[in-house]
Amino acid sequence: MGSLQNQKPDNGFSGTMKPLDPEEFRRQGHLVIDFLADYYKNVEKYPVRSQVEPGYLKKRMPDSAPHDPEPIEEILRDVQKDIVPGITHWQSPNYFAYFPSSGSIAGFLGEVLSTGFNIVGFNWMSSPAATELESIVMDWLGKMLDLPSEFLFSGGGGGVLQGTTCEAILCTLVAARDQMLKKIGRENINKLVVYGSDQTHSALQKAAQIAGINPQNFRAVATTKADAFGLTAEAFRETIESDIASGLFPLFLCATIGTTSSTAVDPLSPLCAVAEEYGIWVHVDAAYAGSACILPEHRHFLNGVENAHSFSFNAHKWFLTTLDCCCMWVKDPSALVKALSTYPEYLRNKASESKQVVDYKDWQITLSRRFRSLKLWMVLRSYGVANLRKFLRSHIKMAKNFEGLIGMDKRFEVVVPRNFATVCFRISPLEFSGNHQIVSKEDAANNFNAKLLETINESGKIYMTHAIIGGEYVMRFAVGATLTENRHVILAWKVVQEHANALLTSS
Amino acid sequence: MGSLQNQKPDNGFSGTMKPLDPEEFRRQGHLVIDFLADYYKNVEKYPVRSQVEPGYLKKRMPDSAPHDPEPIEEILRDVQKDIVPGITHWQSPNYFAYFPSSGSIAGFLGEVLSTGFNIVGFNWMSSPAATELESIVMDWLGKMLDLPSEFLFSGGGGGVLQGTTCEAILCTLVAARDQMLKKIGRENINKLVVYGSDQTHSALQKAAQIAGINPQNFRAVATTKADAFGLTAEAFRETIESDIASGLFPLFLCATIGTTSSTAVDPLSPLCAVAEEYGIWVHVDAAYAGSACILPEHRHFLNGVENAHSFSFNAHKWFLTTLDCCCMWVKDPSALVKALSTYPEYLRNKASESKQVVDYKDWQITLSRRFRSLKLWMVLRSYGVANLRKFLRSHIKMAKNFEGLIGMDKRFEVVVPRNFATVCFRISPLEFSGNHQIVSKEDAANNFNAKLLETINESGKIYMTHAIIGGEYVMRFAVGATLTENRHVILAWKVVQEHANALLTSS
Repeated sequence: MGSLQNQKPDNGFSGTMKPLDPEEFRRQGHLVIDFLADYYKNVEKYPVRSQVEPGYLKKRMPDSAPHDPEPIEEILRDVQKDIVPGITHWQSPNYFAYFPSSGSIAGFLGEVLSTGFNIVGFNWMSSPAATELESIVMDWLGKMLDLPSEFLFSGGGGGVLQGTTCEAILCTLVAARDQMLKKIGRENINKLVVYGSDQTHSALQKAAQIAGINPQNFRAVATTKADAFGLTAEAFRETIESDIASGLFPLFLCATIGTTSSTAVDPLSPLCAVAEEYGIWVHVDAAYAGSACILPEHRHFLNGVENAHSFSFNAHKWFLTTLDCCCMWVKDPSALVKALSTYPEYLRNKASESKQVVDYKDWQITLSRRFRSLKLWMVLRSYGVANLRKFLRSHIKMAKNFEGLIGMDKRFEVVVPRNFATVCFRISPLEFSGNHQIVSKEDAANNFNAKLLETINESGKIYMTHAIIGGEYVMRFAVGATLTENRHVILAWKVVQEHANALLTSS
Repeated sequence: MGSLQNQKPDNGFSGTMKPLDPEEFRRQGHLVIDFLADYYKNVEKYPVRSQVEPGYLKKRMPDSAPHDPEPIEEILRDVQKDIVPGITHWQSPNYFAYFPSSGSIAGFLGEVLSTGFNIVGFNWMSSPAATELESIVMDWLGKMLDLPSEFLFSGGGGGVLQGTTCEAILCTLVAARDQMLKKIGRENINKLVVYGSDQTHSALQKAAQIAGINPQNFRAVATTKADAFGLTAEAFRETIESDIASGLFPLFLCATIGTTSSTAVDPLSPLCAVAEEYGIWVHVDAAYAGSACILPEHRHFLNGVENAHSFSFNAHKWFLTTLDCCCMWVKDPSALVKALSTYPEYLRNKASESKQVVDYKDWQITLSRRFRSLKLWMVLRSYGVANLRKFLRSHIKMAKNFEGLIGMDKRFEVVVPRNFATVCFRISPLEFSGNHQIVSKEDAANNFNAKLLETINESGKIYMTHAIIGGEYVMRFAVGATLTENRHVILAWKVVQEHANALLTSS
C-alpha cells in the first residue's frame, strides 16, 4: 500500500503530495466506506433532528485553513465529533419529516462511481457514455411510469436529469416564456401570467421571479378542503378569464401530483383541457408522488399527463437515488433548446455539428453537469422493477398502518385523505371544547398541535414537520426513509401519544 | 457479512430487499472503491478522448429496465465493458482539454461522505452542520484568496457554494436586476443592458436569456490582441455611453479573470471604476484562474476585486475538488435574498425566525442542496494551504516547460501570453508562405491547425481542445489534471510534433 510519503511524483512539485495515488485512494476509500457502514449501523441511536444551537460549529473550528496536511484518520474523527451532531439524520428510520431523502446502496455507489470518473458531461463529446446512458435510462423510466410515447426519445420527446424540481420548472417556464414572447412580442413580458394553486411548491414562485415574470402576475389559485386541496378546472378557468379581461397573457401552469403540504393531487385531465383552450404550457410536478406512479394501482393519478407539455419527479426523494436527481421529460425538446442553448466556438465539435447527438447543456441551466444517470441506472438494475414496486408499496402500507393507529385514538384525526405514504393528522379541536373562552377551538387546536410537534421533535426520538392546510395546523408523517420498518412506525405512534398525554395533562 | 438474501426486514415488504443494510453496504462499497483504485491505476492506458460513435450504447443496452435485481459484480463488469469506453478520461494525466476537472482523494471522499449522509440542506434547520461548515470554509477560502473582508461573513458579506459558475452569474444577475427594477420600474425590464467581452464565457449570455434580459441588450464588447484580449475600460465606457444615449439602463458587467479561450484577464480596477460611475453591478468570474490567485505571486490578477459586488471561482476545475463546487462571495447577501427568497409555511422554523442563521436556499436557484462544503473542507485539511500552493505552482511550471518546448521548434508559436497553466499555440502561418494561392496564410494555418488537432485527438494519446482568438485557430494545452507529471508534458509535446511532421509531409 502506498502513502502520501512514498515516491516523489515527477511534476516539478518539490513536496510529496500525490492527491490521486491509487493505493492511497484505496486505503482511504476503504476507511470512509467503513465509517459510513458504521454510521448506518448506528444512525438509529442519534437524535433524528440535530440538537445543536446556531453557531455551534464556529466554536469548534479554527479561523483559517490549516497550513499543513492533516491525516484522514484525524479528519474522520472530527467528522464524528463535530459534524455528525450537527446533522439531521434524513437516513434515520425514525425520520418522517418533509419528504424522504431515500438513500440506497445502489444509488450511493452510482454517485461514488460518477464522482470517481469526475467527468464534466456538458455535451455528448465530453463523455459520450454520460449522455447516452441518461437518454436510455430516461426512456426506461418513462416506460415504467407509462408516460405517453411523445415524452420518450423513442417517440420524439425526451428525458433529462435535472438537479432539482426548481430547475425543471425554471427551464420549462423559460422555454414557454420565449415561445410566447416570440408570438406576442417581447414588450409584453410584464403581461405574462403564471398559474399554480395555493398548494403549489414555492419552487414555482421562485422560478417565476428568476425568469423575470411580473410578481403581480403570479397566481396562487385558492383551493378548498371540499376539493381535497386540488386545483379545480373551474377556478383555473375563472382566473384565466379574469386575466385575459385585464389584457394579460396566460402563459404557464404548474400542476402538482402530491403537494408538499398534504400530497393533494391536481386533476390533470380537466386542467390540461382548459390550458389547451388558452394555449398555456402545462408542467406536471410530481416531485414526491411520481415514484408511486410506477405502481399500476397508483398510475391513475397521472391520467391526463398525455396532454401536458412537461413532467418531472425527483428520484432523490422516494426512489432510492441520492440527492440530486430530478427526472424531467418534455414532448418538444426543441422548445428547451431554443431557450437555453448557446454554442460558443470552444465547445464546437464534429458530433454536435452532425446533429446525431443530444447535447444536454441545452436542456438545462448550467453548462457543467455530473454523470447523474449512473446512479439511477444502478438503482434500476440493482433492485429491478418488481422489487422497487414492492418497496414503494411497503411504505404505503406502513403509512396506512399509522393511519389505522390514529383511528383508534379518538382524540386524533386524519385531516386530509391519504393518497400516498404521507399522513396529515392532528389532535382534534373537539378536544378543546369549553376550555378556551378567548381563542376559538380551532385556534386552540392549532396552538396545541404546534406545541406538541415541537416537544416531539425536541425529544430527538422521531422527526416530523408541519403544514397549515385550510387554516389547520397539521403534523405530517411521511414514511419513506429506506431503513424504516413497521416497528419504527408503531414506536413513532407511541412517541406521539406519550407526548400528547403529557401535554394534555399539563395544559 | 450480510447479503441481500439475509434477514427479512419488518417493513411489510414481502421481498428480501434491504437497500441500506450496513454490512451489504460495506461489502459493495469496498468493491467499488477497489474498482476505482484500479481505474486510476489504468487510466493512462485508455484513449483520452472516447472513441465511440454516436449511438454506441443503445446497441449494448436492453430497451427497458430489468424486472429482477442484478448483482453488483455484474453491474461493475458492465461499467468496465460498456461505460468506460464511452468516457472521455478527464482524470487521465494526458488530459489537457477545456479546463481541468482535477479530482483528488480528499475531494472524492468529501463527496462520498456527503452522499452517504444524504441530507437535504435547504435551510439551517434541515442540517445545521451543512450550513455552518459552508460558511466557515467560505471564510477560510476567502482569506486564502485575500478577498477584502466585505466579502466574508466576518465582514458583513458572505460566501456560498453554488453548483457552477452559470448559477453564480444567474443569481447575481437576478439580484442586480431586481435591485435596478425597484429603482427604475418593472416596465423598463426590456431596457436593461448586460455587459461582457467577446471573450466572456457563454454562461453570461445564457444567464441573461434565463433572467429575461432583452437579447438585443446583451453586449459582447470586442477585445483585441493588442490588449491581450482583456476588456478595456475605454471600450466598456463607450458602449455604456452609447446605450444610455439610446435610452437604455446599464445593469451588469461580468468581468473575467482567465477567459475560457485564452485565459485573458479583464483589468478589474479600471472596469470597476467605470461601473461605479454608472451604478453597474460587477461580477468577477474567475472560474478557472481563481485557484491560482491563492498564490501570492498571482494575486495581483484580482487587484480591483475590492470594488466588485460579487466574485466566483470553481473549486471543481483546478482546486482538487470534484464537480460540482463553485465558490461565490457577495458583499451584500441581502440583495441575493431579496431576489431569491421564498418562505412557505412548511419550511418555517424557530431558527429561521430567530434570524441568527443563514438559510442558503435564499442564496441560490434551487431549494434542495447537497452538503458540498464537506469536500472543500477535506481538501483544505488533507493538503493544507502550503501544499495546495506548491501543487498549483507545479502545474504552472509544467505549462511553462511546455511553452519552452514550443519555443525550441520555430514552426510553432505561442499565440497569447501565458498567464496561468494554459498555453495557446499553433503552427505559425509563416509555415504556409508561398504554398497557397487561393487561401491566405492565416486561413491555411487555421485549416491546418484544426486538422492537426483532430488527428492528435483521434490518436487517443492526449486530448486538447481549441479556441479561435482574434480569428486565429489555436490549440489549447491546459495543464491541471491531478495525475499529470512533467513526463506527460514532454510526451505530449512529442505527440504534437510527430503529428505535425506527418501532416506537414503529407500536405
